[in-house]
Amino acid sequence: MKINDEFFMKLALDEAWKYQFLTYPNPAVGCVVVKGESEILAIEAHKEAGMPHAEVNALKAAFLKYHPNDLLKTKKTSNEIHEYLISNHKDFFNDCKVYVTLEPCNHIGKTPACANLLKVIKPKKVIIAHEDINKEAIGGINTLKDANIDVGLGCMKKDAYNLLYPFIKWNSGSFIFYKMAQTLNGSIEGQISENRAKAYVHALRDKSDLMLIGGNTVRTDRPTLDARYIAGRAPNVMIYSKNKIFDNKIPLFHVPNRDVIISDDLFKLLDYKLIMVEGTYNLLDILREKLDFIILLINPKIKKGLNALNEIDMDFEIIHENYIGNEKIVFLKRKN
Amino acid sequence: MKINDEFFMKLALDEAWKYQFLTYPNPAVGCVVVKGESEILAIEAHKEAGMPHAEVNALKAAFLKYHPNDLLKTKKTSNEIHEYLISNHKDFFNDCKVYVTLEPCNHIGKTPACANLLKVIKPKKVIIAHEDINKEAIGGINTLKDANIDVGLGCMKKDAYNLLYPFIKWNSGSFIFYKMAQTLNGSIEGQISENRAKAYVHALRDKSDLMLIGGNTVRTDRPTLDARYIAGRAPNVMIYSKNKIFDNKIPLFHVPNRDVIISDDLFKLLDYKLIMVEGTYNLLDILREKLDFIILLINPKIKKGLNALNEIDMDFEIIHENYIGNEKIVFLKRKN
Repeated sequence: MKINDEFFMKLALDEAWKYQFLTYPNPAVGCVVVKGESEILAIEAHKEAGMPHAEVNALKAAFLKYHPNDLLKTKKTSNEIHEYLISNHKDFFNDCKVYVTLEPCNHIGKTPACANLLKVIKPKKVIIAHEDINKEAIGGINTLKDANIDVGLGCMKKDAYNLLYPFIKWNSGSFIFYKMAQTLNGSIEGQISENRAKAYVHALRDKSDLMLIGGNTVRTDRPTLDARYIAGRAPNVMIYSKNKIFDNKIPLFHVPNRDVIISDDLFKLLDYKLIMVEGTYNLLDILREKLDFIILLINPKIKKGLNALNEIDMDFEIIHENYIGNEKIVFLKRKN
Repeated sequence: MKINDEFFMKLALDEAWKYQFLTYPNPAVGCVVVKGESEILAIEAHKEAGMPHAEVNALKAAFLKYHPNDLLKTKKTSNEIHEYLISNHKDFFNDCKVYVTLEPCNHIGKTPACANLLKVIKPKKVIIAHEDINKEAIGGINTLKDANIDVGLGCMKKDAYNLLYPFIKWNSGSFIFYKMAQTLNGSIEGQISENRAKAYVHALRDKSDLMLIGGNTVRTDRPTLDARYIAGRAPNVMIYSKNKIFDNKIPLFHVPNRDVIISDDLFKLLDYKLIMVEGTYNLLDILREKLDFIILLINPKIKKGLNALNEIDMDFEIIHENYIGNEKIVFLKRKN
């Protein structure tokens, strides 16, 4: 196996994917710091909006690898780490390469600009997979080049684009993903997912602006649709239904601080940025031209039971996958 | 993400899995060489019986990373690489750690003993995931310890055991795997796999001692069951059928250098070491207690059509997965 730029960028991409959607409204970003040719010092990601960017986490971890008892260890916020490294980097990074999946930000938002930090600590090279698309943050590459830092652009760009795709979509309108759970053979009957997968689904709900669900599912399953497994925020709900009459005792109507809309007008979705669809397979057919991703949870069983998707034809690209406990999570992007 | 022994061993395991079954009758083994704490020099695997072992490939690649024009470049066979490194290692490996998924071999078989090579080049530490189970090859750890080389044993042992599991089974009897291909939603109708996946299936056939297939599939599909996509060896075939009468014009009967058995006695399987099952889903049910792995090829489509597995209940552990082109390959181990 070749140990090259693609190898290190792949590590950065995989790390970023662990926090896909959880960084909303920020993009998922990963960063790897390599000393010399191939001494790997840090593999980090941006984890949540308001928390340090991927570069900051990675530079901190890399510095601490060589200086494990340095005061930097006590710096937690982005501002603290930026300030400390700018004054105390001791030229440590001059023979380092920094791999980052997205162009370092150039503006001062909730956290100071990463391009500025890199400019000061002067790594040997910054390898960037994808340029920024956020007009406010753009210009990082120029800042680095103006500081005479060698910049490589486009390494694994297609994979970085797929990682960035939800951010691109919600930044310019709506990003819609469908959460499905099934066994290996496609059965959807009964309880499919184990607790860790359920907690992940609740983390996604916590971040979503809106959950869309079908009226028949609401009538049959009488769900709560909150994020109790992670003590998170319950998302607003839109019930897709022509018939507007529902039993008011269904638990989802009694979750505090949540709006529930009952409608059959899918144009309402355009008012929301991050939309999660759950549970009704006829919605998959109705949304087939609007859907961006399927997040598919697979429990590795072959199990007797109904396969509800036998009447739908759609093509996808697998753009990432991971494990949640013993189960699989697969990120599928709809092919146009 | 922590950059530790587990991180490097995982790279070795993943590399080894790329050649799982293709090394038959040898085990799949991976090896990573790290200089100092985390300078990653080589990620290699054993690729085919008779070819260099994982350690030899990795030590060669690591040495060439620092000495790209060394004469070692021209050494191809295991004997040549062993001999050359023993005389010309220049103490290069003294500050290296060698991660290997299986205890280095201690006997001289088709290739010289890896334990002996390591003893001479003296790496700082050898980290081994799983001890050898092959009585002829065992003793590598003691050889290293006797040479005062620091040995770590058991890093990611469970994963290494899963990697080694086919070898353990065919070494002590039979290893039986079932090849399945389906869409995301479990549909098996029509052509599922693309050409790269088909070539992989033919590479598996080429290595298998026996292919088992159901009589009805033979009558309906009239298959050839050879390894033409890779210009490989056609395996012997056992057709599982009570009715022994078949149309003699079915192509599989006319492949040269192949035996075909028609039988409904599954005890005959015990005469073979590596057995591949294809195509008939009632065989999955019949073999449910004997099956070791399912190798599942998944094409990322949702597609209308028959899901043949709706009447079977089985539990699996996902022990590895990879891509073949745009498709997924998942290695599933049956849970007892």
